[in-house]
Amino acid sequence: MPRGRFISLEGGEGAGKSTQLKALANELRKRGLEVVETREPGGSEGAEKIRELLLTGSEERWGPRAEALLFAAARADHVDKTIRPALEAGQWVISDRFIDSSLAYQGGAGGLGIDAVRAINAFGIDDCFPDRTLVLALAEGGARARARDNHVGDRIGGRPENYHQKVDLGFREIAAEEPERVRIIDASGEPDEVTGRLLEAVADLLP
Amino acid sequence: MPRGRFISLEGGEGAGKSTQLKALANELRKRGLEVVETREPGGSEGAEKIRELLLTGSEERWGPRAEALLFAAARADHVDKTIRPALEAGQWVISDRFIDSSLAYQGGAGGLGIDAVRAINAFGIDDCFPDRTLVLALAEGGARARARDNHVGDRIGGRPENYHQKVDLGFREIAAEEPERVRIIDASGEPDEVTGRLLEAVADLLP
Repeated sequence: MPRGRFISLEGGEGAGKSTQLKALANELRKRGLEVVETREPGGSEGAEKIRELLLTGSEERWGPRAEALLFAAARADHVDKTIRPALEAGQWVISDRFIDSSLAYQGGAGGLGIDAVRAINAFGIDDCFPDRTLVLALAEGGARARARDNHVGDRIGGRPENYHQKVDLGFREIAAEEPERVRIIDASGEPDEVTGRLLEAVADLLP
Repeated sequence: MPRGRFISLEGGEGAGKSTQLKALANELRKRGLEVVETREPGGSEGAEKIRELLLTGSEERWGPRAEALLFAAARADHVDKTIRPALEAGQWVISDRFIDSSLAYQGGAGGLGIDAVRAINAFGIDDCFPDRTLVLALAEGGARARARDNHVGDRIGGRPENYHQKVDLGFREIAAEEPERVRIIDASGEPDEVTGRLLEAVADLLP
């Protein structure tokens, strides 16, 4: 059985990731694929435990390095227990956020540096990078105005506006460095149009 | 105020680390120093939460990479919240286990490689390496026979004998690579004699 494909959906708060993930998964199912939907932080029993530590408590609960390592640990567990077994069983996996969220949030906006955060995460995922990463992007300011993501209001979503602008910039930097894997997708317009753009961006991976 | 000194005590199970830590701390206090005693995994509020995740549950609960990243996250928090503030206040810190436990256990015995585990931990501690690391060593087999450490019987202490032999080997490798920082201390004989050897090995750091 051929290995499944691994797609991650990325973007700032309120770009519509959750809605688009479901729509993309359903379109792929219509094409006969088995699709596992998952999300970070979390996506496995151990990672959900770590998620609780990360998203609750005061802003000062974790320093930036401890926080980045906890995200990387949760991701390693997510790969071990959920993503790699599914791929090996021939299923497609779509994850709402993955390594690039850490690069853009902790590495770019958080000031730890994209390369340093990539290094600890590459160790954790043991080469299980997504086959394609789709970054949902809105014109500046649009994303926060549309904020409809559950994430808003927790330890990370509640950070100030300029933090979130740096996150957007981080995603654009990563896409420029890895143009084959990472694609910026225009998230404006009707949901159906956006789903169409996502499908087009994974068309070359279809069996 | 001059920065305090940071000492870590290392060694396999049952080498007498806990007893020797208290004895060394008391000797240093007699010399007029303020000494903070701490231990890993744990040593700060956040790190203790991570410790619970690490030491409970089945052997299969965490894969090796997730486990190594959780230890590194706990250590980053330990440095942020306990060790660095104490050193900056001029206190000495003695920790029962620190980075070299991860190098010997997860890196050497666990098969992830000492260099890879050093890299994720160096990121976490942000250059807060111990000024001196004292590895309590017994002739082969002695350590397990004397096993009197609380650690025995949890997820890590309960691993098979050849795992613990590889841990000892890992400590010897690290000491060979970093002879200025890391010293192997003979842990045989009366406790007082061992404490004398430890004191001698930090004599050059005393004010």
